[in-house]
Amino acid sequence: MICAVDLNSDLGEGFGRWTLGDDEALLDVVTSANVACGFHAGDPVILRRVCEQAAAAGVAIGAQVSYRDLAGFGRRFVDVEPHELTQDVVYQLGALEAFARVAGTRVRYVKPHGALYNAIVGHEEQAAAVVRAVVEYSPGLPVLGLPGSAFLRQAADAGLPVVAEAFADRAYTSEGTLVSRRSPGAVLHDADEIARRCLAMATGEPIADASGRSLLLRPDSICVHGDTPGAVAIARRVRAELTGAGVALAPFAAG
Amino acid sequence: MICAVDLNSDLGEGFGRWTLGDDEALLDVVTSANVACGFHAGDPVILRRVCEQAAAAGVAIGAQVSYRDLAGFGRRFVDVEPHELTQDVVYQLGALEAFARVAGTRVRYVKPHGALYNAIVGHEEQAAAVVRAVVEYSPGLPVLGLPGSAFLRQAADAGLPVVAEAFADRAYTSEGTLVSRRSPGAVLHDADEIARRCLAMATGEPIADASGRSLLLRPDSICVHGDTPGAVAIARRVRAELTGAGVALAPFAAG
Amino acid sequence: MICAVDLNSDLGEGFGRWTLGDDEALLDVVTSANVACGFHAGDPVILRRVCEQAAAAGVAIGAQVSYRDLAGFGRRFVDVEPHELTQDVVYQLGALEAFARVAGTRVRYVKPHGALYNAIVGHEEQAAAVVRAVVEYSPGLPVLGLPGSAFLRQAADAGLPVVAEAFADRAYTSEGTLVSRRSPGAVLHDADEIARRCLAMATGEPIADASGRSLLLRPDSICVHGDTPGAVAIARRVRAELTGAGVALAPFAAG
Amino acid sequence: MICAVDLNSDLGEGFGRWTLGDDEALLDVVTSANVACGFHAGDPVILRRVCEQAAAAGVAIGAQVSYRDLAGFGRRFVDVEPHELTQDVVYQLGALEAFARVAGTRVRYVKPHGALYNAIVGHEEQAAAVVRAVVEYSPGLPVLGLPGSAFLRQAADAGLPVVAEAFADRAYTSEGTLVSRRSPGAVLHDADEIARRCLAMATGEPIADASGRSLLLRPDSICVHGDTPGAVAIARRVRAELTGAGVALAPFAAG
Repeated sequence: MICAVDLNSDLGEGFGRWTLGDDEALLDVVTSANVACGFHAGDPVILRRVCEQAAAAGVAIGAQVSYRDLAGFGRRFVDVEPHELTQDVVYQLGALEAFARVAGTRVRYVKPHGALYNAIVGHEEQAAAVVRAVVEYSPGLPVLGLPGSAFLRQAADAGLPVVAEAFADRAYTSEGTLVSRRSPGAVLHDADEIARRCLAMATGEPIADASGRSLLLRPDSICVHGDTPGAVAIARRVRAELTGAGVALAPFAAG
Repeated sequence: MICAVDLNSDLGEGFGRWTLGDDEALLDVVTSANVACGFHAGDPVILRRVCEQAAAAGVAIGAQVSYRDLAGFGRRFVDVEPHELTQDVVYQLGALEAFARVAGTRVRYVKPHGALYNAIVGHEEQAAAVVRAVVEYSPGLPVLGLPGSAFLRQAADAGLPVVAEAFADRAYTSEGTLVSRRSPGAVLHDADEIARRCLAMATGEPIADASGRSLLLRPDSICVHGDTPGAVAIARRVRAELTGAGVALAPFAAG
Repeated sequence: MICAVDLNSDLGEGFGRWTLGDDEALLDVVTSANVACGFHAGDPVILRRVCEQAAAAGVAIGAQVSYRDLAGFGRRFVDVEPHELTQDVVYQLGALEAFARVAGTRVRYVKPHGALYNAIVGHEEQAAAVVRAVVEYSPGLPVLGLPGSAFLRQAADAGLPVVAEAFADRAYTSEGTLVSRRSPGAVLHDADEIARRCLAMATGEPIADASGRSLLLRPDSICVHGDTPGAVAIARRVRAELTGAGVALAPFAAG
Repeated sequence: MICAVDLNSDLGEGFGRWTLGDDEALLDVVTSANVACGFHAGDPVILRRVCEQAAAAGVAIGAQVSYRDLAGFGRRFVDVEPHELTQDVVYQLGALEAFARVAGTRVRYVKPHGALYNAIVGHEEQAAAVVRAVVEYSPGLPVLGLPGSAFLRQAADAGLPVVAEAFADRAYTSEGTLVSRRSPGAVLHDADEIARRCLAMATGEPIADASGRSLLLRPDSICVHGDTPGAVAIARRVRAELTGAGVALAPFAAG
C-alpha cells in the first residue's frame, strides 16, 4: 500500500517593507502553499513572487482568504455581514488568481485564515458566506478546513471538494478537536515527536490525544508552520520523516 | 455611412459607507463602464453590484486601475517603482475579473485612473509598467487612454489593442491636447455645446479648439462624467444627441 | 426654573473624496460635535476644518473614537484585544486633540462610535479598555454614552465625569433601553413628534415608550443626526422646539 | 573643552504582526528616538511601548512624520497638496504626543521620514507645509533635518529651532551633500571607520569626503540605523567610540 499526504503552510505573509517567515525554505518542504491575498498580509509584489516560486517548485497555490484587517493580521473576529464577506472572499480569490495565471498556473484551493478560519468552525452565516463565494467563483474549487467544522459541512453540502487538515504541532482532545491555545500543552515543540505524529497521521495510525489515549485522524493535508526559524526546522523534519518512511508527498489539488 | 462610438464613464467609485456618483443612471447612458478596483475607490460589495448591473445592461466592464491611495482618491502622483506598479495593476485586474466572471462576463479593457492616467502620458517607466501588467495578464486586452500618450504608444508597440478617447467636456489645444484644468475655460459646462461637440467627434467633423480654430478628433470612445447630478444630465444629453442623429452607441470591446 | 440641555451629533464623517452629512448645517444646531478621528471616518483635512468651524461656532469638540475599520465605517464589532483597543483610543484622542489645540480649544469629551458604542454597553473588557484609555489620557475628561451601559458604569467607577444621552429619533422600551433597529417603529421619522419628545426629555417630562406608557428619561445630552437632508431638517426642528420653549442649549462640557 | 552630541535613530517601525529593527537595543544606544507615527509604520500598541521605553531610558521622543503610505513604508514620493500635508503632519504629531504624555513626557522634536525627508530637501511647497504644521502645532518645537535643505532653511525663517544631522554610515560629496545611494561607496559598512568618522564629526574634526579630501561637518545629531543586527552592532560601536573619547551623549532637546 502506498500512502500519500499533502503538507500545507502559510506563505506570502509579509507586507511592504515587512517580512514574515521564510517562503523560499517552505517551498522546499510543502506541497501546498496557502498564499495571503492582501487582506491580512501579502502585497501584490509578494503575491507575484510567491506565485512564481510556487509554480516553479510544483507547489499548489491556495488562496488564504481573510477578514480585511492588516492591523490585526486577520486574527480578530470581525462581525462582517455575510453578503459583504462573500464579496471580500471573491475579491481576494480574483486578485490571487491573476498572479497564479501570470505564473502559468491557477488557484487550486481555498483556506480561510486566522480568525475567519476559527469563526467558521461554528458561525453558520459566515461559513455560508465563504462557501457561497467559492461556489460563485469556481464551483469545483476545493476548500481546506477543520474536520467537523460548519465550513466543511456546508461546503460539502454545496458540492465543493472538501479537504480535511490536521495540525502537525497541536494537541487534540479525545473528540478530535484542537486543545485551546490557552491550555498548557496545546502546542507541541519537540521536532521528533511532531514528526512521528505526522507520520502516524499519514499512514493511518493513531496518535496520542491530550489525555494519552489513541486518536485516529485521517487528514488529507497536514499544516506546518514557517514563521520562525525553529518552525522551518520542524517542517523540514516532518518532511524528512514522511519521505524517509516512503510516504509520498503530493498536493491534494493538482493542475 | 453608419457612425458608431463608445461612451465611457467612471463607475463604482464609492467606498464602504460613502457613495459617489449615480451608477445606475450612468448605466443607462454609457456603453463602457470604467469600474474602480479598490485602490482609489470601490469596495468588493460595490464591485459586485456594478459588475452585475453592467452585465445586465450590456455595458462593457473595464478596469479603472489606480495607484494605491484611498485617502487621495488616486489623484496624487505616487513615485512607485515600476515593478511594484505592474503588480498593483495585475492585482486590481484580477480582483475585478472575479466579479465580472461571477456576473457572467469578463473585463474587456483597462483604463488607468486619475494621477496614474495623467502620469503615464509622459512618464515612460510607469507607462511601461502598466503596459507590462496588461500584457502579462491578458495580451489581447484593449487599453483606453489619451491619444499621443506614452501609454498608448507603448501599448501599441507591445501589441495591445489601443483605444483613443476624447473628453466630452474638456477644451482642447490646437495640438489636440487637453487645456490644463488651471486655465480658464478648460472645462465646458453647457450641455448643448458639449452634446454638439460629441456629435461632431463621433461623425468625423471638427470641433473648435480653445482658440476657435477647427480641430479634428477621431476618438473611439468619449468620456462622460457622472459624479454630480449636473454631470448625469449632461451625459444623458450627449447620448440623446448622438442617438438622435443616428450614431450607434456600442462598446468598443464586446464579448 | 431654567432647563438646559446639550445637543450632540456626529460630524466630520467624510474621508478623502467622499463626503457625508452636512457639517456646517449641524454646527448651527448642536452644542457638542462628536468628531470622527480617522479610524472609521475623518481624514486630517476634515478634522482640521471641523475643529476650526466648531471652535468658531462655540460648539464643544468631542472625540468620536472607533474601531479601526474604514471599510465598515466602524459599524462592525471587532474582537480587538483590550490592551490594543486602549491604545487605539489614545491614538485617536491625541490626533483630534492636535487639531482642537490648533483651533484654540481642546477635546472636551469622548463618545465611542458605532459598533464600539454598542459593544461596550455589555462587553466589560472592551468597556474597561476604553475607560482606561480616557483615564490615562486625561483623567477628568467626560464620556458620553448610554445610560445603564457597562461603559458609563465603569467610567463612573474610575472617576470620569459621565454624561447620559438619549436619542431624539429612537423608540424606547419600558426599561428605558433602545428598541432594536430590526423592530418596526424603532426609528421615528415625524419631525413634530421627535421635537416634542426632545422637549419633554429636556424639561423633565415623561415620553411615551414603545407600548405607549410613560417613561422618564433625564438625559444630559440628546443625540440628533445629520447624515441626510431630512435628518438636518429634523435636527433644526428639535432645536427650534427647545429654544422656543425657553430651554437653554449649552454644551455639557465647556472650556 | 567638552564635546557633546546627540545620536538619533528610527524606532517603532513595525506594524501589527510585523516587527522591524531592535527597538530595545537601540534605546541603550541613542539619545533621541525618531518614533514612527502610524502613517508609514507604527501602530498604537507600538507607539505606546516605544514611548514608555524611551521615557524610562531618558531618550528624547521625536515624531518621525511621513506620507500616508503603509504599503510603501513612506519611501515613495507622493505629490500631496501642501494643505493636506500640513494636516497629515499635525495628525501624526498629535497621535504620538498622546503616547508621550501618557508616558510622562512630550514630543521633543520632529524628523520627517523617508521620501518626505528627501522631498523637502528641495521641494519648497512641501517643505513649507511641514514647517507650517510644526509652527501651528507647537511653535518652539525643534526640527531635525539635512543641513542645506529647504526644510531647515524655511524652519529657521519661521523661528523653529533647527537641528542639523549627519549620517554615520553615508559618504559625503565635497559640498557636504550625501553621495547618492546609487553610486558605489555611498554607504559605509566598516564599523571602525564609521565610529572614527562619528568621533571626528562630534569633536569638530574633518572627515574624508568621497574623493578623500577633508570635509568639516558640524552636526548637532548623528543618525545611526538599527534595522538589521549588523546595524545595531555598528550603532553600539559608534556610541562606545564617542563615550570612550569623552564625548558626552545627550539629547539636543531635553525636557
